Amino acid sequence: MESFEFLNPTKIIFGRGAEAKAGAEAAPYSKKVLLHYGGSSAKASGLLDRIRSSLKAAGVEYVELGGVKPNPRISLVRDGARLCKEKGLGFVLAVGGGSVIDSAKAIAMGAVIDGDVWDFYLGSGGPKAALPVGVVLTIPAAGSEASTGSVITNEEGLLKRAVNSDLIYPRFSILNPELCRTLPPFQAACGASDIMAHLMERYFTKVSNVDFTDRLLEATMKTIALKGPLALERPDDVDNWAEIMWAGTIAHNNLLNQGRIGDWASHDIEHELSGIYDVAHGAGLAAIFPAWMRHTIKSDPERFAQWAVRVWNVDPDFRDAEATGREGIKRLEAFYRALGLGTKLGDLGIGGERLDEMASKATGGGKRTVGNFVKIDKDGVRAILELAR
Amino acid sequence: MESFEFLNPTKIIFGRGAEAKAGAEAAPYSKKVLLHYGGSSAKASGLLDRIRSSLKAAGVEYVELGGVKPNPRISLVRDGARLCKEKGLGFVLAVGGGSVIDSAKAIAMGAVIDGDVWDFYLGSGGPKAALPVGVVLTIPAAGSEASTGSVITNEEGLLKRAVNSDLIYPRFSILNPELCRTLPPFQAACGASDIMAHLMERYFTKVSNVDFTDRLLEATMKTIALKGPLALERPDDVDNWAEIMWAGTIAHNNLLNQGRIGDWASHDIEHELSGIYDVAHGAGLAAIFPAWMRHTIKSDPERFAQWAVRVWNVDPDFRDAEATGREGIKRLEAFYRALGLGTKLGDLGIGGERLDEMASKATGGGKRTVGNFVKIDKDGVRAILELAR
Repeated sequence: MESFEFLNPTKIIFGRGAEAKAGAEAAPYSKKVLLHYGGSSAKASGLLDRIRSSLKAAGVEYVELGGVKPNPRISLVRDGARLCKEKGLGFVLAVGGGSVIDSAKAIAMGAVIDGDVWDFYLGSGGPKAALPVGVVLTIPAAGSEASTGSVITNEEGLLKRAVNSDLIYPRFSILNPELCRTLPPFQAACGASDIMAHLMERYFTKVSNVDFTDRLLEATMKTIALKGPLALERPDDVDNWAEIMWAGTIAHNNLLNQGRIGDWASHDIEHELSGIYDVAHGAGLAAIFPAWMRHTIKSDPERFAQWAVRVWNVDPDFRDAEATGREGIKRLEAFYRALGLGTKLGDLGIGGERLDEMASKATGGGKRTVGNFVKIDKDGVRAILELAR
Repeated sequence: MESFEFLNPTKIIFGRGAEAKAGAEAAPYSKKVLLHYGGSSAKASGLLDRIRSSLKAAGVEYVELGGVKPNPRISLVRDGARLCKEKGLGFVLAVGGGSVIDSAKAIAMGAVIDGDVWDFYLGSGGPKAALPVGVVLTIPAAGSEASTGSVITNEEGLLKRAVNSDLIYPRFSILNPELCRTLPPFQAACGASDIMAHLMERYFTKVSNVDFTDRLLEATMKTIALKGPLALERPDDVDNWAEIMWAGTIAHNNLLNQGRIGDWASHDIEHELSGIYDVAHGAGLAAIFPAWMRHTIKSDPERFAQWAVRVWNVDPDFRDAEATGREGIKRLEAFYRALGLGTKLGDLGIGGERLDEMASKATGGGKRTVGNFVKIDKDGVRAILELAR
């Protein structure tokens, strides 16, 4: 186990009807709030009206900025940051899933600087400050509701890049599983895929003596393996959504990677996919992860075998750890299919034309590697994309 | 799942040699610190000298108060609170296990009031303020290093009572698994028993739809079931201690009970045992828990069966859940024996003479019940104590 320091400062407010607390939770931070959201679903469901009422009841003024799209764009972030400066807003309340939250975090960083917030995403130094952010979560998926991360797409160049900073941990996140009932099945599926990916990225590590966190990760993967497909069968089952929602937060709130070094190659590769083709992150991961696994299994078949036995109930074959692990990969693919997701690039309408370009972009033109479990260069990324075809 | 709000504000600093950071972590809170500890082991190991050096290097003055005993006494707490007031100390640094930490938390509450801190333990209103507390943990057991709890014994009347308050979450806790190597085997065993008890108290709940947290608890129980006995076989194995130490903190930092209602009857009953007989908490729990289980198994044999199958690898018999559960209880007893602990009151030198008195004290003279999974009255507590003989 590696040394670590850990404190997650996001207050979780979990339960049916919990969004009624949004105003009272935001008020101590600022009486002037940017209310940030996506498209029509939050309006149609009446959620936005309930949030507005909650803000008014707490004496909080708000300015609205909707229109966040999946793979959130830097252009809207810049608009939001400008709005915060012009109107003197002191808090950003995100109502939505990972895209809205990541956009809100970017606005929060951009609102307190003179320059362009995109520079942080290009890696030119970290932020020194940010407005406080709060969340009303509508999609269990990205885990951004209790994380340090924000992923933004720059539509010029189709670049998708991330910032990680303790400054953008949300101050509170409201998790009401009732809100998930109206999720379209494809979004529910992509969410389960994303949560599973966050767990697998953390699980595949070269750090030894991580038995306890192995088991916590396995427990969370088993939960998503069972509850994810069930959410598509029974979208009205709020109890099932509650399990997914809480597991999705724990999967990515940094608890389960303490003392470990995760991999993250599949995320980096998928970012190029959704950057260029604008595919949903969870759908892209379902194509990339099995290919990444087949590319890397020989480097540590015993870890793959442990994962296959403990998460997917594969019978262990101790004379052939690799075969045991490969059976686990097949069961992961079956999980994706149960979610209605394809496991090949072709299922996403992606051909072989731009594989070189993606391999190059993922590795900074071949100058760096992706991943930690196995360090993968440009040719390796190209091979994984080929396996994913 | 029940609704909940959760934020654990204790910063965890985990790793070899981490106690060197104690001074720098304490300094922002106060430059005048009460250094609180137990007996001779911290002195003999050189740990206290390293802490003193760390405080001096950070420009922090300190006043020392050692002598905390297992089942920490209110008399020393009162001395500590007086010392803080007289010397104007603004921070309490606990170096030790649960007893020292609980004593430090009590001092922190007592130092900011005019009255007697014992009144809080008698339930007359909660604390309104407390000095900040920091921890250097030496025994993985009580989980007090990241909890809201403090348990103190009043030697007049042999009363052992608890306070729970968000105000006494430690501001930081330093966890260095190297420090565990010199633990006497009996203390190591009692620690593992205490951690397992914290998990079982949370696990046995009547709240339904808690599948995810069930699995997290099972993962943590399995870790302790394997690593606890190993610590006695291989006391120098720091990697093994690291797993136990981190699991011990997670077992009791309130993460694993979110959305659930735990039981806690066994803890309440054990408190009377250690209050009267001054037995080690973990040793007392090893006698009480199997008896509590045999007393309550018929109320929910399916939960016991799930626990037996998932934690103790018992073969499931779906036509006889109770038999499956009872086999789990036997394996729990085998776990205690592997730790060198007895599973009967007689092993602790406790006869049948004062069972009535303990049953009466645990239930406030028969006026209240203990436990939530099953509500147990005075006669029930008496029956459990009888089963434990």
